[in-house]
Amino acid sequence: MRINKEIMFETFKTKLMDRGYDQIRATQAANNFVESSLDGMYSHGVNRFPRAIEYIDRGIIKVNNREFVEQNLGAIEIINGNLALGNLVAMNSMNRAIELAKENGIGAVAIRNTNHWMRAGAYGWQAANNGCASICWTNTISNMPAWGGLEAIIGNNPIVFSIPRENGQHVVVDMAMSQFSYGKIEQVKMEGGELPVYGGYDTKGELSKNPEEIEKTQRPLPIGYWKGSALSITLDLFAALIAGGLTAPIIKDKCETEYSICQFMIAIDTKKLDHLNTSNQIIEQTLKMIKNSTKIDESNEIRYPGEREYKTRIENTELGIPVNELIWKTILDL
Amino acid sequence: MRINKEIMFETFKTKLMDRGYDQIRATQAANNFVESSLDGMYSHGVNRFPRAIEYIDRGIIKVNNREFVEQNLGAIEIINGNLALGNLVAMNSMNRAIELAKENGIGAVAIRNTNHWMRAGAYGWQAANNGCASICWTNTISNMPAWGGLEAIIGNNPIVFSIPRENGQHVVVDMAMSQFSYGKIEQVKMEGGELPVYGGYDTKGELSKNPEEIEKTQRPLPIGYWKGSALSITLDLFAALIAGGLTAPIIKDKCETEYSICQFMIAIDTKKLDHLNTSNQIIEQTLKMIKNSTKIDESNEIRYPGEREYKTRIENTELGIPVNELIWKTILDL
Repeated sequence: MRINKEIMFETFKTKLMDRGYDQIRATQAANNFVESSLDGMYSHGVNRFPRAIEYIDRGIIKVNNREFVEQNLGAIEIINGNLALGNLVAMNSMNRAIELAKENGIGAVAIRNTNHWMRAGAYGWQAANNGCASICWTNTISNMPAWGGLEAIIGNNPIVFSIPRENGQHVVVDMAMSQFSYGKIEQVKMEGGELPVYGGYDTKGELSKNPEEIEKTQRPLPIGYWKGSALSITLDLFAALIAGGLTAPIIKDKCETEYSICQFMIAIDTKKLDHLNTSNQIIEQTLKMIKNSTKIDESNEIRYPGEREYKTRIENTELGIPVNELIWKTILDL
Repeated sequence: MRINKEIMFETFKTKLMDRGYDQIRATQAANNFVESSLDGMYSHGVNRFPRAIEYIDRGIIKVNNREFVEQNLGAIEIINGNLALGNLVAMNSMNRAIELAKENGIGAVAIRNTNHWMRAGAYGWQAANNGCASICWTNTISNMPAWGGLEAIIGNNPIVFSIPRENGQHVVVDMAMSQFSYGKIEQVKMEGGELPVYGGYDTKGELSKNPEEIEKTQRPLPIGYWKGSALSITLDLFAALIAGGLTAPIIKDKCETEYSICQFMIAIDTKKLDHLNTSNQIIEQTLKMIKNSTKIDESNEIRYPGEREYKTRIENTELGIPVNELIWKTILDL
């Protein structure tokens, strides 16, 4: 079924207000869930909404808490998320990074003690919509072995880079350090298929495309093998160092579930660049050259990061957002 | 053979002064080549020195040029590399980013119109040695197909993240967006072996570990397949946008060889963080947990990024830097 975005928004807003959120914060959070769903990121939009409510009901997400500034160092601020709703903390924090960028050319925030921010890419789009290039990432609870290891000790720590374009069709990459998420592995298992490339290890210790085997071993593969493992470790330590928060292994050790995580956000104001017009032309020319380069298969487009999301947004705005009926029923019953 | 680091340094310095570099700049550049070699990064240290001299002799690297500031936006500066020696430009620029970080908490520089900076990781170590966490990357000439494409249209754009540790054994990841460099592929071909994991496509269009086949197709594999391709595109556009410079496909189109590239550097001063002591403990504890996690093979250590380089540095400082005799002769004859 498809649900109109206004109806979805009103539903989310009502459920959040039922839990004690005021109109402004419920609107802001509901918008975040709807926009991710509009862009086709259902796993971190509509499909994730029930879990967010569950975390509120379990008291993991603290309804009445607000994030606050721990330290200002000039163009960078340290923020304590105070275990508030993760996407609210992240949106407010990215707004602060954008403000700092408008003042200093570059601005950053490091957030500790926050909750899952839902869709990572949302904050890249937010920055780009405000004329800023951005880098942001989050750590997670440990969910992947380090290279050479057997047990899940590092996070998949998604990272985002965004580049604003004048036409609003921003370039945004949003990627976890695991080749596939557990959600994707589960989905392929349900469909009875196999992963398009190696996604982890099987019970014999061999690289495997079999989703069931990878679920058994709990050994998903980092992107680029040792490289993704190394990058994951570094992103985790970096965010925790600057924010003064916990790392993936310590979160796993200390917390029953994923909370008190860290995020890091950088925004760079492009509007004051003397060469902005030239740069914008270079970007358009480059994207054209990449898209027009010789294809493996002429029927398959070469896409730039964010292209598909933009197209899906237009489609879902027109036709409604695709939702599994059971999930929608669950949401209505929350 | 092994060459003592002092002898290597004096040799490089002399060769650079022969080409017109003054004592200060020759010392600085020679140090960069020696330190990368000490850390075991021979391909971008001693083995790369002849090519740097060749580029100087061909006039691609302009001996008498100095980089200069194009625009200051507060905590971020736009620098024109003026086609000077790339590692000199990069070292000076990272120093400027560190200065800006000491003033503003965070500092950044975007560099256009510069040359190859040799070893990417060098600037991560430089920041960490000054108490800064850092992110930096470079674009390159196109050398890899985009995901879904056949011709080399995107760069492998190495990126670095660094985290300072009090004991000087910093955590530094330095990784290109290709699974293997052409240098590595060539080396494995020479040895008659195959790559440990898929490194590109063969002439039948299948994923391959065969270095000869990958050299034939010129289709190396991005890390994480579509993910590394997307990240590469974004890093390229990001650096070119802020710096006002050229992207990988335009460099390939316009320049016969790799020059007039872009770099981007961010430094964050950790010294003023209120929570620095706590963070340092968290880092040490996390590294211990990762290193002590269950191994696939008890005889193989789980390493954090930068660990091997630090150990190699100690070894090569003591025993001398391993160099191929032919390469050393070539250098002496330059």
